[in-house]
Amino acid sequence: MNEFALIYELIAPTSCRREDVLLGIGDDGAVVTPPPGHSLVVVADTVVAGRHFPADFTAADIGYRVAAVNLSDIAAMGATPLWATLGLTLPEPDPEWVREFARGLAESLVPAATALVGGDTTRGPLTATVQIIGALPAGRALTRRGARAGDLVCVSGTLGDAAAGLAAWSAAGDGSPYGHALRERFRRPQPRLALGERLLELATSCIDISDGLLADAGHLAEQSDCAIVLEVARLPLSAALRANCASEAALRLALTGGDDYELCFTLPPTALAALAAPGLPPITPIGRVEAGRGVRVLAPDGATLAFERTGFDHFAAAD
Amino acid sequence: MNEFALIYELIAPTSCRREDVLLGIGDDGAVVTPPPGHSLVVVADTVVAGRHFPADFTAADIGYRVAAVNLSDIAAMGATPLWATLGLTLPEPDPEWVREFARGLAESLVPAATALVGGDTTRGPLTATVQIIGALPAGRALTRRGARAGDLVCVSGTLGDAAAGLAAWSAAGDGSPYGHALRERFRRPQPRLALGERLLELATSCIDISDGLLADAGHLAEQSDCAIVLEVARLPLSAALRANCASEAALRLALTGGDDYELCFTLPPTALAALAAPGLPPITPIGRVEAGRGVRVLAPDGATLAFERTGFDHFAAAD
Repeated sequence: MNEFALIYELIAPTSCRREDVLLGIGDDGAVVTPPPGHSLVVVADTVVAGRHFPADFTAADIGYRVAAVNLSDIAAMGATPLWATLGLTLPEPDPEWVREFARGLAESLVPAATALVGGDTTRGPLTATVQIIGALPAGRALTRRGARAGDLVCVSGTLGDAAAGLAAWSAAGDGSPYGHALRERFRRPQPRLALGERLLELATSCIDISDGLLADAGHLAEQSDCAIVLEVARLPLSAALRANCASEAALRLALTGGDDYELCFTLPPTALAALAAPGLPPITPIGRVEAGRGVRVLAPDGATLAFERTGFDHFAAAD
Repeated sequence: MNEFALIYELIAPTSCRREDVLLGIGDDGAVVTPPPGHSLVVVADTVVAGRHFPADFTAADIGYRVAAVNLSDIAAMGATPLWATLGLTLPEPDPEWVREFARGLAESLVPAATALVGGDTTRGPLTATVQIIGALPAGRALTRRGARAGDLVCVSGTLGDAAAGLAAWSAAGDGSPYGHALRERFRRPQPRLALGERLLELATSCIDISDGLLADAGHLAEQSDCAIVLEVARLPLSAALRANCASEAALRLALTGGDDYELCFTLPPTALAALAAPGLPPITPIGRVEAGRGVRVLAPDGATLAFERTGFDHFAAAD
């Protein structure tokens, strides 16, 4: 089996079909029709074995993950995903592995109606880069730059679960349903696409939480040239996280644990009610935007808390 | 230095600016404006250390290469490149290395007016995936599928040089100008963008020669459902290749050596004259399209030659 057969025969059939794909996998490039009156959003993210997932992650887990983290970036921009390409480097052309990888990839891309239109398969250490192109109404964009003093800071879903799930990944004998739920949060992050599209009309800034709330809220503050003040008592913690971790540990995970892929966004307080709608995840206001800079976290008594680490950094983190 | 700083501070400033880039590197995604009335072409290629280049390739060589091989795919589709993303995995966040990589990347992208709009930098074994989006007039595409019996088969430039350059890469003491010229063909492939754009109007099928002429002409034959007959006496060989290799070895490199990144295309004989134009590379007719299937190579006496290998295959090739 050669590299072409790998893509053509195993991965290509798992893609959904879109009428705007004029020419898909199998030529030097794909040909697609951009929707008229729209801007395009382009995102690219890489996952690396030994770095972004545990050693016992399955091929399907890896395929799902590399697509989902990109879809999460598309969601954070308020865009609708359209087409994806894949750069897959793997040590051996094991058809069973590739088939499982493709299954996981499709598990993420197909519900998002995103067609895989091309890519490259090469031999080497296990690495996968996905790039996704999405669409936005022309002239609109949901960026990190628009937060204004007086806005609420909100997050979707619950925080800290994925980091707790990763920590519990290889915990021997943890057969509790809570441990399973947390591991699933790490293993199958849910890109918040419907929410992102809604936020395009409502939010002033947005980011997806991949590196941890403090780090990612910090990007909003820095790029919006404002301060963000978070109240620790407001952080949404799941029942599973509360059951698995002591209170302080749970808060630390919620603030600094990565991989939740929830959205953190800012919006005027009057816009909040519009987000209580069917099909959207629970939204929790966790703080506010002020003049100034940086991120502060307030304890229930109003005191400012200090943290050593602000999140996950691929190069700064210890190996 | 963290992963963000690597991209923001070292790579981003080397990108050219385009007015259709509304939001570049630094958010969850880039926002770009597609040209009205056009289709888009999407390509993605990966280069892996120890697989696609010699161990002593410099960071600039690697950066140049990963962009150039993608631009070559854009050229083979007859498209005009617009925007690129980069997935870069590297063992250490060495600023000097990244600066050199970015210099090589820009050396390839800037003359092609292609803006780097985003990407991801991760730690791991050295791998780089670039994805480029280009534009085509809507409804047009130069694919591998349109060759027709009676068409000429042509190639641009000369063949076999890059493979000879790679073979001579670490030949001790080879300070000859010919050896240098061949190594440069491997080290700095020239995407045939102007030719590809012209071929969009003239050619019936096209592919870039990355895996070797026989393998790539085989893709044209297979996907166009026709036979391709090549005449060995017509293959364009450079003076450097002739000076460095015995006649038979030179022909073998021209037929099966990869990495030339010339274009191989088919067109009606009457269209050939339009390709003798300023700004385009030399074009050589090397054979014809017939009814049937597969690729045959004819010796000067008309006998059919047999070859063991048809080109480069990442997984089939010996490690």
